[in-house]
Amino acid sequence: MISKNKISDIRKLHQKKFRDAEQLFIVEGRKCVEALLQSDFEVLDIYATEANAKENQHLLGKRQVTLVTDAEMERISTLSTPPALLAVARQSTRRVNIPDEEPVLVLDRIADPGNLGTIARTADWFNIRHIVCSPDCVEFYSPKTIQATMGSFAHVHVQYRPLVPYLREQSSRRRVLGAFLAGESIRSFGFQSSDIIVIGSESHGISPEVEECVTRKITIPSVHTGPDTAESLNAAVATAILLYQAAAKF
Amino acid sequence: MISKNKISDIRKLHQKKFRDAEQLFIVEGRKCVEALLQSDFEVLDIYATEANAKENQHLLGKRQVTLVTDAEMERISTLSTPPALLAVARQSTRRVNIPDEEPVLVLDRIADPGNLGTIARTADWFNIRHIVCSPDCVEFYSPKTIQATMGSFAHVHVQYRPLVPYLREQSSRRRVLGAFLAGESIRSFGFQSSDIIVIGSESHGISPEVEECVTRKITIPSVHTGPDTAESLNAAVATAILLYQAAAKF
Repeated sequence: MISKNKISDIRKLHQKKFRDAEQLFIVEGRKCVEALLQSDFEVLDIYATEANAKENQHLLGKRQVTLVTDAEMERISTLSTPPALLAVARQSTRRVNIPDEEPVLVLDRIADPGNLGTIARTADWFNIRHIVCSPDCVEFYSPKTIQATMGSFAHVHVQYRPLVPYLREQSSRRRVLGAFLAGESIRSFGFQSSDIIVIGSESHGISPEVEECVTRKITIPSVHTGPDTAESLNAAVATAILLYQAAAKF
Repeated sequence: MISKNKISDIRKLHQKKFRDAEQLFIVEGRKCVEALLQSDFEVLDIYATEANAKENQHLLGKRQVTLVTDAEMERISTLSTPPALLAVARQSTRRVNIPDEEPVLVLDRIADPGNLGTIARTADWFNIRHIVCSPDCVEFYSPKTIQATMGSFAHVHVQYRPLVPYLREQSSRRRVLGAFLAGESIRSFGFQSSDIIVIGSESHGISPEVEECVTRKITIPSVHTGPDTAESLNAAVATAILLYQAAAKF
């Protein structure tokens, strides 16, 4: 049973200001909830219909599940098709120290929640555990981002911090690679596992202040044939190709 | 000036059934309209506010533009932030013959409009001109897909056809490569420009019938470290990495 107040509390978490204030977030769908339960995140509540709670018994184990009706699940969910499972969890405030020899992905003003989630998922695939976002990147704990990670939100450490002081400090010990439309081709670039890779925003690329912190400019070569060519790649796609190429050298 | 009837006609094109019936589609935003105007697509109408028509004079040239108010643009647009330019164009029914030596990207049941558009944009970047979609792929002319192509919709040829007879027929002359979670690593795979590359749906991968037509299974190797790894990649991301690697050999 779920009270009207509880429904209203969960619905508030659909909005960023309440997520910020409560330091909570919503996790939806079987795969994402499974990843959540296997992680260090503090889980406050799990919701499921009776049928779905039974069907997912193997994931839920002995955890307490609040049973809801289809209509209630529809109300608390942010998705147009309500998920089998929905959980509320506490945002992580753990500050992870990033070892100097581990690669770092830096995101400058990524604006699309789906892109941010897809990027985290891809980083996870290539075993890149550290993502540093500029303060004006879209929120990692937004339901769309969490959804797009397909569970990888639980495997990567994401922190928000001003990029210029961070990169200035790092650049004494590590190379800071920035993805631009013109630069050294990544096909022949000698990536190192200590590299920091900076990706810019969907519409404006890397900001001028951050560009000044970049020590090497790299690019994904297009196959040119004339004016009829794409001018750029989607930010999540560009990140994926870079990480694929870089991971070959790690 | 735009009539109420015209506004209603354009708003109908927000829905697939009317796009199908009229064989028309909507193109929104400066970049996409620019690509449209440089293409062979038949353009029926262009809409802009007076300010935006002036500002984009260099793109529009001598073409007739219907001036609209901000409120009218908001009504005819599918976007939450109305675009500077909006055009209505005729869908292409041109059947392109694909030369045997040109690579083909085959999409099996891609369901997300953003993914389809991003895939077309990436294919364009790597100069892959031919995309063959299964009939149950999402519609290429949906506004979300067109938007996600960032203009590349005008550079790639997309056709919908049943995949099994198509691939059976092709496999006598070309290799049919399918992207799976297990297969030959693409890092060392000898791609050929005559290859057909098949990508499966976001949730279910390549369907069993299509799998039977695949002559080589290929995979994007993940960097494994334990259970805490992403189980798969986003479909547009996987396609991008494949095309990047394949394009190196074309």
